[in-house]
Amino acid sequence: MSATADPAAASASPAAGIEIRPATADDWPGMWAILEPVIRAGDTFTWDRGTTEDDARARWFKDAPGQAFVAVRDGQVLGTGELHANQGGGGSHVANAGYMVHPDHGGKGLARALCAYSLDAARAAGFRAMQFNAVVESNVRAVAAWQAMGFEVLATIPEAFNHPTLGYVGLHLMYRKL
Amino acid sequence: MSATADPAAASASPAAGIEIRPATADDWPGMWAILEPVIRAGDTFTWDRGTTEDDARARWFKDAPGQAFVAVRDGQVLGTGELHANQGGGGSHVANAGYMVHPDHGGKGLARALCAYSLDAARAAGFRAMQFNAVVESNVRAVAAWQAMGFEVLATIPEAFNHPTLGYVGLHLMYRKL
Repeated sequence: MSATADPAAASASPAAGIEIRPATADDWPGMWAILEPVIRAGDTFTWDRGTTEDDARARWFKDAPGQAFVAVRDGQVLGTGELHANQGGGGSHVANAGYMVHPDHGGKGLARALCAYSLDAARAAGFRAMQFNAVVESNVRAVAAWQAMGFEVLATIPEAFNHPTLGYVGLHLMYRKL
Repeated sequence: MSATADPAAASASPAAGIEIRPATADDWPGMWAILEPVIRAGDTFTWDRGTTEDDARARWFKDAPGQAFVAVRDGQVLGTGELHANQGGGGSHVANAGYMVHPDHGGKGLARALCAYSLDAARAAGFRAMQFNAVVESNVRAVAAWQAMGFEVLATIPEAFNHPTLGYVGLHLMYRKL
């Protein structure tokens, strides 16, 4: 019942010296250094593994009320995320977001900090909920992180992801109100 | 256990004289005459109600292995649908599809016939399952039709659709194997 009982609030403070803010065009090289290996690995995101840098940039930078954002320390991009409406028209009040963290900086709460930033930004932009459509079931650290951030698994689409080494695994639809 | 016990098979034969085939550029005026009122009404599709004709055409015509298709009789487009991969990369073996029927030709099994066509086309293209991300809960005729075609509701995202007259209603995620 205390403030720290809310994992989202507890995780909202990133590690010391890290700033999370909207991304600028100048941030792109540092962002791409994070995105490219994640896209090429193809084990956590449902992106074509051959996605070009231009296509990735166009896809990651979102128009308002969406946005791309970065976690930076001493000028280095340590992680990045993006936020957008999950559907158009009558579905445009539900946000969707994605996050990637530099492999040298994983396990330090950075993904949760990026998520907390996106929840605040989505709330400020008027979204009423956030939904992830395709959280790879085998990405157990991510699933646990989003659960700690208040998301619940509403459904698992069976065998919906062909993992490069594990074969067919499920994709979770995860959701939380804002 | 008989062939007719499979509702998909039973519904696969459209009304007499109707042909369902891939759409061509020449079909577009007839397709747009169906799409436009559905998009403008905003009560069944999560498309921005102000979507322009050019944007709709670009969005409805899908690249292979997806496709747009039409149900025609005597040269008139009575219904249309589109098929595409629901996700990229490791998720590209699950199809997604959408269908629209001319209001003068509703309730005659045309939507089910379009769905049956898309299931066959998806199977032929190598997809292993089909998923609908956003079936509006209040569109009970569509929900019943897809259930009759073998889809099940895996989740209902609460209040995810702002219906023009009903207010917030759920969006169903519906799924079936191919």
